[in-house]
Amino acid sequence: MSIFVPMRIEIINIGDELLIGQVVNTNAAWMAEQLNLAGFMVDRYTVIGDNRLEILESLKDAHVHSDLILMTGGLGPTKDDITKDVLCRFFQTRLLFNQQAYENLEKFFTLRGIPVTNLYRKQAELPETCTPIPNSNGTACGMWFESKVKERDNKVICISMPGVPFEMKAMLMESVIPLLKKYFPSQTIVHKTIMTQGIGESFLSDILENWEKQLPANISLAYLPQPGIVRLRLTGKGSAAEPVDRQITEEIVKLKQIIPEYIYGSDNETLEEIVGGLLSAQGFTLATAESCTGGYIAHLITRIPGSSGYFKGSVVAYSNEVKESQLDVHSEDLKKFGAVSEIVVREMAANIRRKFGVDFALATSGIAGPDGGTAGKPVGTTWIAIATPTKILSEKYLFGEDRERNIRRTALQALNMLRKEIIHGDKKIRSAF
Amino acid sequence: MSIFVPMRIEIINIGDELLIGQVVNTNAAWMAEQLNLAGFMVDRYTVIGDNRLEILESLKDAHVHSDLILMTGGLGPTKDDITKDVLCRFFQTRLLFNQQAYENLEKFFTLRGIPVTNLYRKQAELPETCTPIPNSNGTACGMWFESKVKERDNKVICISMPGVPFEMKAMLMESVIPLLKKYFPSQTIVHKTIMTQGIGESFLSDILENWEKQLPANISLAYLPQPGIVRLRLTGKGSAAEPVDRQITEEIVKLKQIIPEYIYGSDNETLEEIVGGLLSAQGFTLATAESCTGGYIAHLITRIPGSSGYFKGSVVAYSNEVKESQLDVHSEDLKKFGAVSEIVVREMAANIRRKFGVDFALATSGIAGPDGGTAGKPVGTTWIAIATPTKILSEKYLFGEDRERNIRRTALQALNMLRKEIIHGDKKIRSAF
Repeated sequence: MSIFVPMRIEIINIGDELLIGQVVNTNAAWMAEQLNLAGFMVDRYTVIGDNRLEILESLKDAHVHSDLILMTGGLGPTKDDITKDVLCRFFQTRLLFNQQAYENLEKFFTLRGIPVTNLYRKQAELPETCTPIPNSNGTACGMWFESKVKERDNKVICISMPGVPFEMKAMLMESVIPLLKKYFPSQTIVHKTIMTQGIGESFLSDILENWEKQLPANISLAYLPQPGIVRLRLTGKGSAAEPVDRQITEEIVKLKQIIPEYIYGSDNETLEEIVGGLLSAQGFTLATAESCTGGYIAHLITRIPGSSGYFKGSVVAYSNEVKESQLDVHSEDLKKFGAVSEIVVREMAANIRRKFGVDFALATSGIAGPDGGTAGKPVGTTWIAIATPTKILSEKYLFGEDRERNIRRTALQALNMLRKEIIHGDKKIRSAF
Repeated sequence: MSIFVPMRIEIINIGDELLIGQVVNTNAAWMAEQLNLAGFMVDRYTVIGDNRLEILESLKDAHVHSDLILMTGGLGPTKDDITKDVLCRFFQTRLLFNQQAYENLEKFFTLRGIPVTNLYRKQAELPETCTPIPNSNGTACGMWFESKVKERDNKVICISMPGVPFEMKAMLMESVIPLLKKYFPSQTIVHKTIMTQGIGESFLSDILENWEKQLPANISLAYLPQPGIVRLRLTGKGSAAEPVDRQITEEIVKLKQIIPEYIYGSDNETLEEIVGGLLSAQGFTLATAESCTGGYIAHLITRIPGSSGYFKGSVVAYSNEVKESQLDVHSEDLKKFGAVSEIVVREMAANIRRKFGVDFALATSGIAGPDGGTAGKPVGTTWIAIATPTKILSEKYLFGEDRERNIRRTALQALNMLRKEIIHGDKKIRSAF
């Protein structure tokens, strides 16, 4: 059982690009969230440029106030990357060639079939007093420093990581958080996130008001909206995991009774993962015929490793000619009802299913905007159809005016329709389960 | 003409929600950008929770180091909004009812047809020593403090603004920046960003070393890498815009002579925008046949408004059957050479071009990973082909091990190949320009 020790944690993000508004600092929010999930509360973060004096001053301030300092940025091989030099000066040490770091570097380059350049050789030089942290996605090692500050009783831990999100994220999850959990005792925090699709945050909070009020005092709820999705995060605190886990599980059972139709998964699962899992468990196959989503559904599905096991492919029919020639949509229907119509989207779904020889097919046709809307069919009008082994389903939606959001919402809505159909579809399909 | 005075500027954003990763701090990036465009460089920003000690400590630190401090957050009427109290304590003053602020408050509520509630009456109480700044979109006044710090010669300006982006943005643009321009003389800062694709940061910096060395002292260069793309940002400083603009333009002319093949655009343009612009200017049409990219290229292209004018569609052929039945790839070639081979990707490009009746076609086939690699064709092996009115081009790449990055890099590489081919392709195509 772990004991709670109050601790002050600070993040320092280094990078000129963060100070002129060209790049939004998403690293800090992501780090804060992951640390939080692991039981560590961040108290402050500071963003500064690639500037020796600023870095030095921030390091000094942080070492006076904080127990744990997490830095990102300035570890690249170019001359504006100065963090390692400043760390040497601050910790009164020097750069030394590190054989282990060099071997990692060599491995990284060899895998890519290129030799280590002179510029990159410097990446294997590390401050003598640090413990290196491996980087599985790049050339810059992370660094762990422990030091004694005269104003403080405890040692201060300072960790320097790369600023490239892809490298930092892997390093934080694979190495830094496990090391921190060993080093610092923390109280038990249990999180569980429920994923919902198809309902907005304010409607959801109206429906859930009474349930939220009766939550135990040690359990809190957060609404985390994203375009087309609202995540509901339950956070429970206690001295041990098991009873908190049990409390949260009980609350989720209640929640599922209140909004069964909107819950599709948990803990940041995506709809494309859930749908992929359902298809692959039953040996079903899928294809898509996409107009307004323009390949986005196919892209979501094929982002998932192993999707080639159930996804056969897609026809993106962005013109009426292609709808006719590749999807056998009737020319008269296109003329009479238009491409954004129930009859056309049903033909698209039925025909792609037949042509690609799959069990399930999805089709979309809508007006993503900003142009193309009319009084009868404003921007946001969208038809979605699903063809199954036994029937064709179609639904109409009116989304908003923003093109990217319309594409995303259509794709999520289509995937959720498919998910429900695979699970709750008619008996003939269910018998295959 | 303005005179350069070195000045240190700091932003302090207050809000618990910013520290648990629930909300990304977009205020700081937006403020930094607007200040920057007005000639003020932000040196640091700090994010802290709604916590008295943290706010007080940050105010103290900032008054020692900075000439101008811009704070946001904690000005609401509820009990977790404590910024005004802390400001009173820091500036050793007290809250006083402010008639002007109350009248603004009344006007705000009257416009919305609701009476001023008791909770909101407190919003008219302001620290006695501050100058109020009007809020055209909300109930909380901004506050301007001037104070003398013993370590410093000049006065320090501290401005407190609401944290709600909609209120803060209006206040910054309408009042704060105009006031700052009067109070502080500012220099002119000009930025220009050049977009490159197809070369990593380190290789680029090797090639550009000599050019970088000869840059005028008032012009600086930053490398801003993203997956598959490196942005080169030139920042120039001076007393007026025109000569700095001219200097930067001259340097970009030189840059284009050194790396013409990698530069595809400027100032955050995307490859899909550039390619779309080129196609649509010439009346050319495009289709894609995608295996490893799984619809991602079609998605990037169709994200752009108006893309239906030049993009006819795509066949995502995620299985060999679909490659044969929809793209007429020869079954013997698939058997003999495999789907990830030059001959297959060329057939895909040529056949989608013919079937969709387009001028240009892109095709991709690769092993995105994590599975499917072999000794001869490791994960990351990728073939890209382009079919034009006169020829078929194909290129092989060896990307890395990460599935999402492989998909992205393949798509960007394919779009850049297409861009070059449209611009520099053989005479027969060029004659159409």
